[in-house]
Amino acid sequence: MKAVVYKGPRELAVEEVPDATIEDPTDALIRITTTNICGSDLHMYEGRTAVEEGTVLGHENMGIVEDVGSAVGRVKKGDRVSVPFNIACGTCRSCNEGWTSFCERTNPIEGMQGAAYGYANMGPYRGGQAEYLRVPFADFNLLVLPPGGEHENDLTMLSDIFPTGWHGTRLAGLEAGDSVAVFGAGPVGLLAAHSARLQGAREVYVVDQHADRLSLAERFDCTPVDASTGDPVELIMDASGGRGVDRGVEAVGWQAHDPQGEEHPEMVLDNLVQVVKAHGGIGVVGVYVPEDPDGPNDLAKDGRPAWDYGTFFTKGQQMGTGQAPVKRYNRQLRDLIVEGRARPAELVSHELGLAEAVDAYEKFDQRLDGWTKVLLRPAS
Amino acid sequence: MKAVVYKGPRELAVEEVPDATIEDPTDALIRITTTNICGSDLHMYEGRTAVEEGTVLGHENMGIVEDVGSAVGRVKKGDRVSVPFNIACGTCRSCNEGWTSFCERTNPIEGMQGAAYGYANMGPYRGGQAEYLRVPFADFNLLVLPPGGEHENDLTMLSDIFPTGWHGTRLAGLEAGDSVAVFGAGPVGLLAAHSARLQGAREVYVVDQHADRLSLAERFDCTPVDASTGDPVELIMDASGGRGVDRGVEAVGWQAHDPQGEEHPEMVLDNLVQVVKAHGGIGVVGVYVPEDPDGPNDLAKDGRPAWDYGTFFTKGQQMGTGQAPVKRYNRQLRDLIVEGRARPAELVSHELGLAEAVDAYEKFDQRLDGWTKVLLRPAS
Amino acid sequence: MKAVVYKGPRELAVEEVPDATIEDPTDALIRITTTNICGSDLHMYEGRTAVEEGTVLGHENMGIVEDVGSAVGRVKKGDRVSVPFNIACGTCRSCNEGWTSFCERTNPIEGMQGAAYGYANMGPYRGGQAEYLRVPFADFNLLVLPPGGEHENDLTMLSDIFPTGWHGTRLAGLEAGDSVAVFGAGPVGLLAAHSARLQGAREVYVVDQHADRLSLAERFDCTPVDASTGDPVELIMDASGGRGVDRGVEAVGWQAHDPQGEEHPEMVLDNLVQVVKAHGGIGVVGVYVPEDPDGPNDLAKDGRPAWDYGTFFTKGQQMGTGQAPVKRYNRQLRDLIVEGRARPAELVSHELGLAEAVDAYEKFDQRLDGWTKVLLRPAS
Amino acid sequence: MKAVVYKGPRELAVEEVPDATIEDPTDALIRITTTNICGSDLHMYEGRTAVEEGTVLGHENMGIVEDVGSAVGRVKKGDRVSVPFNIACGTCRSCNEGWTSFCERTNPIEGMQGAAYGYANMGPYRGGQAEYLRVPFADFNLLVLPPGGEHENDLTMLSDIFPTGWHGTRLAGLEAGDSVAVFGAGPVGLLAAHSARLQGAREVYVVDQHADRLSLAERFDCTPVDASTGDPVELIMDASGGRGVDRGVEAVGWQAHDPQGEEHPEMVLDNLVQVVKAHGGIGVVGVYVPEDPDGPNDLAKDGRPAWDYGTFFTKGQQMGTGQAPVKRYNRQLRDLIVEGRARPAELVSHELGLAEAVDAYEKFDQRLDGWTKVLLRPAS
Repeated sequence: MKAVVYKGPRELAVEEVPDATIEDPTDALIRITTTNICGSDLHMYEGRTAVEEGTVLGHENMGIVEDVGSAVGRVKKGDRVSVPFNIACGTCRSCNEGWTSFCERTNPIEGMQGAAYGYANMGPYRGGQAEYLRVPFADFNLLVLPPGGEHENDLTMLSDIFPTGWHGTRLAGLEAGDSVAVFGAGPVGLLAAHSARLQGAREVYVVDQHADRLSLAERFDCTPVDASTGDPVELIMDASGGRGVDRGVEAVGWQAHDPQGEEHPEMVLDNLVQVVKAHGGIGVVGVYVPEDPDGPNDLAKDGRPAWDYGTFFTKGQQMGTGQAPVKRYNRQLRDLIVEGRARPAELVSHELGLAEAVDAYEKFDQRLDGWTKVLLRPAS
Repeated sequence: MKAVVYKGPRELAVEEVPDATIEDPTDALIRITTTNICGSDLHMYEGRTAVEEGTVLGHENMGIVEDVGSAVGRVKKGDRVSVPFNIACGTCRSCNEGWTSFCERTNPIEGMQGAAYGYANMGPYRGGQAEYLRVPFADFNLLVLPPGGEHENDLTMLSDIFPTGWHGTRLAGLEAGDSVAVFGAGPVGLLAAHSARLQGAREVYVVDQHADRLSLAERFDCTPVDASTGDPVELIMDASGGRGVDRGVEAVGWQAHDPQGEEHPEMVLDNLVQVVKAHGGIGVVGVYVPEDPDGPNDLAKDGRPAWDYGTFFTKGQQMGTGQAPVKRYNRQLRDLIVEGRARPAELVSHELGLAEAVDAYEKFDQRLDGWTKVLLRPAS
Repeated sequence: MKAVVYKGPRELAVEEVPDATIEDPTDALIRITTTNICGSDLHMYEGRTAVEEGTVLGHENMGIVEDVGSAVGRVKKGDRVSVPFNIACGTCRSCNEGWTSFCERTNPIEGMQGAAYGYANMGPYRGGQAEYLRVPFADFNLLVLPPGGEHENDLTMLSDIFPTGWHGTRLAGLEAGDSVAVFGAGPVGLLAAHSARLQGAREVYVVDQHADRLSLAERFDCTPVDASTGDPVELIMDASGGRGVDRGVEAVGWQAHDPQGEEHPEMVLDNLVQVVKAHGGIGVVGVYVPEDPDGPNDLAKDGRPAWDYGTFFTKGQQMGTGQAPVKRYNRQLRDLIVEGRARPAELVSHELGLAEAVDAYEKFDQRLDGWTKVLLRPAS
Repeated sequence: MKAVVYKGPRELAVEEVPDATIEDPTDALIRITTTNICGSDLHMYEGRTAVEEGTVLGHENMGIVEDVGSAVGRVKKGDRVSVPFNIACGTCRSCNEGWTSFCERTNPIEGMQGAAYGYANMGPYRGGQAEYLRVPFADFNLLVLPPGGEHENDLTMLSDIFPTGWHGTRLAGLEAGDSVAVFGAGPVGLLAAHSARLQGAREVYVVDQHADRLSLAERFDCTPVDASTGDPVELIMDASGGRGVDRGVEAVGWQAHDPQGEEHPEMVLDNLVQVVKAHGGIGVVGVYVPEDPDGPNDLAKDGRPAWDYGTFFTKGQQMGTGQAPVKRYNRQLRDLIVEGRARPAELVSHELGLAEAVDAYEKFDQRLDGWTKVLLRPAS
């Protein structure tokens, strides 16, 4: 089958690899209909991770069940399904408690919890930027979708970024009627903002430096805050009559940089501590890493952004972090899409064939204007 | 009336001050029966805060209602009461939501939320290490206790440290059956440990370097972890069969120091990130400050301990912080004391007259062996 | 001042009564701008309660602060305010826990918790269908609104029915993405449906027998279910593909009757048990009473509707009930109105002067077509 | 293998039946070490259910894994395990949400959710009062226990009654510091009381009419309330100074009877409504049924106990019901047992061989004094 293969920093190939197959009785084999390029794929693309050469990329996958193992009984051949990026066993303590993002059985690396498709440090599983994908523990992991092709571009957001954005709002403790500031108007930030709206937030500020992303924030009925024109803390404090916001979502991550392009890993956390009210909550879904050899200084290299913790404590704030347990949210989000309430496809900018993946990665990595979210169609 | 007055760094006096009186119709006047010296009083004593000379200290107060203002109707003259250290109005949004520690009306300093008796930056209210105390918004703030003198040493813990310890466990998300590690076996840490036990924790580790405190942890039926004998992370990982704990409580604060006495503001946070499981929770009630001119380095001076945030995110942990809203817990804790379930007085080491306060502060500040918790009796 | 006075069953008068005044230092005096007739006022009007002759009716009140007592400090003369129907002290245990609907101090009747304006069994407080209203514990009870006259018809819903409808959804345990069935499209039911939408329900069914009400349900973007055309259980099961709903709200009460007008106090509860899924939740804000001398049979007279409890248990359902603690929700709902997210005024059908109240009660009581919600303007 | 087989009302046999075997790749085969007789087994024994002749009884099972199917990977041959009475698939929506008691896949009866071993209407699964037991979806359902034989009598309570009692307290919304009344001092009620204690209840009343059970309540450090000596409502109101309790647990069920032995299905619910405070919670784990041909009157036959619902609403109480999802609690309870915190074995009265089962059922059904809880050892 054809697949997108990592060959080295900024080097990919679309090439033949051995077919994905059923390996275990609990597996399913999926024919991919849509697979997305994720912002976090770029970390690997740029050579900023330990991903191995030869890895098939792609953790945002959906498709049709082509075959199932002998122990699979809930999903059936022909089912249209969304594949959560977390690979979870469904039977360990973390999975029992709803934390599939920290499954204790699927990642063979000693001391690591949580696995994913085609991702550095997340286990030996091939990704889905390919014609077919093997899905372990299929009865547990797969979300069945309405048959046919309707809402394909919305439903493809269920594998990762829509639940991840939603998770950001849950970690922040959002309740209906709250105001919220989302830092970062990339796909995850935009869907965190959309999620906040869907849950009844009264005011949603979205902070970014890029005009194309800010205009998407408006299309999601949110208030854009242009950090290229001033201090976002001041802009939000002014807009909120000095009160700030009830909740904050971090959707930028450790490579946060100022308008001049200089990295400041503590910058967004500092801003959130300022704009969020005393005893308010902050949800962090932008990625921070324990070590980053390419970081701008020793603390950054060591995964220790020196953010304003003293003020965080004094204000009695709360913070939740980490990868989203997709299964906790994807069924409800599917239903909101099908009922016409949610419309995450709003942010899709490109729909391409698998063959165009190499070019798409390059342009997406350069954050060219208008390259917001790229979908790949292996069958087209 | 006589009161303990701050005169300058490491300089106190017990002297005559103007009598406390009813100033507003919602006030009560309390005759103090017991008032405790708190570890946080030592920050002021040591000159490490902006407290003004002439301040009457003391925020851990209980006593008898001597008089009430014309608008007070729930509490009555003669009632035995506990006075939460937070001074709260009972009518602002924070108070409505149960966050009396961030009352929006009682602290007149611009931008500050939350007030307290006899404390730096917490408003103009005199403390209760004195014969009498004025209590604003008495109907809202005062907790009525059973009449008489029973359980006095237990009930005096309701004004601050017992609810503060309990808050640490709530911020950590503790549930019955969880294991927990409490860092710091000072009075707050010990009562956090006691709180965890009362709520059905299955295993409670208490980390400290002082033998007298660790033996108190044992008296509260907890497992002492002696950080003077080894790395507490390793000790806890070994004791827990490598699993670590479900929850962690920080009860040390920014002046955390190693066995050699060197301050490392990030040390305890780092340890907590290590011992707490993935997707576990951390409650921080040890105090961190936004600025500390006497800090050991520039980051510490700026309130920015560079702790292991990358691992915190990777493990998907959650953290709650800040001063306890005492009213949220003190009624239930009173009832647990009265029913004989809770016994926080276990940690009382000294019961002294007001005249002995100057000497007591000096010895408590030196952390002399056995000086765990000092109660003052203004009437004795 | 002029006021609407209860004179006996189906007999009201608009007449002069002694002026409302400040009686206690914690009181405020409100000049009423809008006061609504509530469906529950009709229980008294029809003589089906123990309300005393001479009572001034009206518990859905808003207006301008005309004067305050000496102990009032948060609200000021000239403030535009909403008055929650619950009269709460702000300092008892129930109020501390957010249950102002069960205040332990404001209802002087032995064994009763919770007070209200102008209402049977809810204390000696006069209602606000009058020119002025005395509000006890004003700093605690009053919600300050934006100055001016904007959103008056929306904001007048904050005193009772919007928070009551919202409470119904909270008691049902509604979460974003859930489906919900609301029984009863009177004002409370419609605003429960609107509340569910605001919180991200994916599908909201509203059951009633009246065309005018069902068309309002559609204006709130909900799915009307016409119980005059068939069994509402079957209609909902069909519409939901046999799955039923996640949550149910009861907004009818004990006088539930079939299309032929016969009362069946257990009918709506039976229907809810059927349409709500196993382990789903039911919120009951329609009123049930412990005794009803006019009930259709002995069990009804005794407040014991014999509903299908065996199935309720077998399905493991959960149920919450009772009067709404308005303060828990009214601030957020105010903000949602001001931001243009919520628009409860949609259901207002009549805006009349106080003099027209007698006629309005009569027509509202007959449930004449189009008499959905009546607002009175004492100043017009 | 030998098993306890239902032959008809009050007629059992211990006889040879076909061996239990691995039927599906997700199965495990368990060699039973301990299996308990449950109070709900008596409903079948007495002929008051639709259980079929030939059914092997027993849903409270523990033992050693003898063999596993090809798709089982978490549990291994030789593991000592507890078998939750709910048979759950681990992959349906109910299971995903933690409601294994309402699994949507394991009960083949149309419209029924939830399955169990050897139980009427709960699917075709044979029970474990036998030498061996087939466990479907073994990786999901089985709880691994420490190896060896320690705590056998405590750990055998994990399959049903300890989690069921605990569930009662959770449905009631119990928090540390609350007072609680448990109606029924059978095994489930006693373990609900023990559960409340473990979670920090300040006062636990246990109501029953039998002296042997009340003395067990005392051994669990609870306050016995002897309903044979007076009205339990009055007894609890007196003991609590007129306040009643914060929470209530129903552990009696629809066959509730007065001291004279007459059945009153509404009696315990009525009492709970009286003793629980306004806005308090009630958890119902005593079984109520949708139909009971042998009920004392028409309403009882129809599963409609006419309890005091009007007062329930007026007090704004909340209620949760239904079979416990054992998996939600059994891990934590196992850990509390192993740490020596929980000791449910306290209530064991008899440990017998399988051959003695017929006699044991007969005596247990007569509720002979001292027959509290019977364990069967198939291997002895």
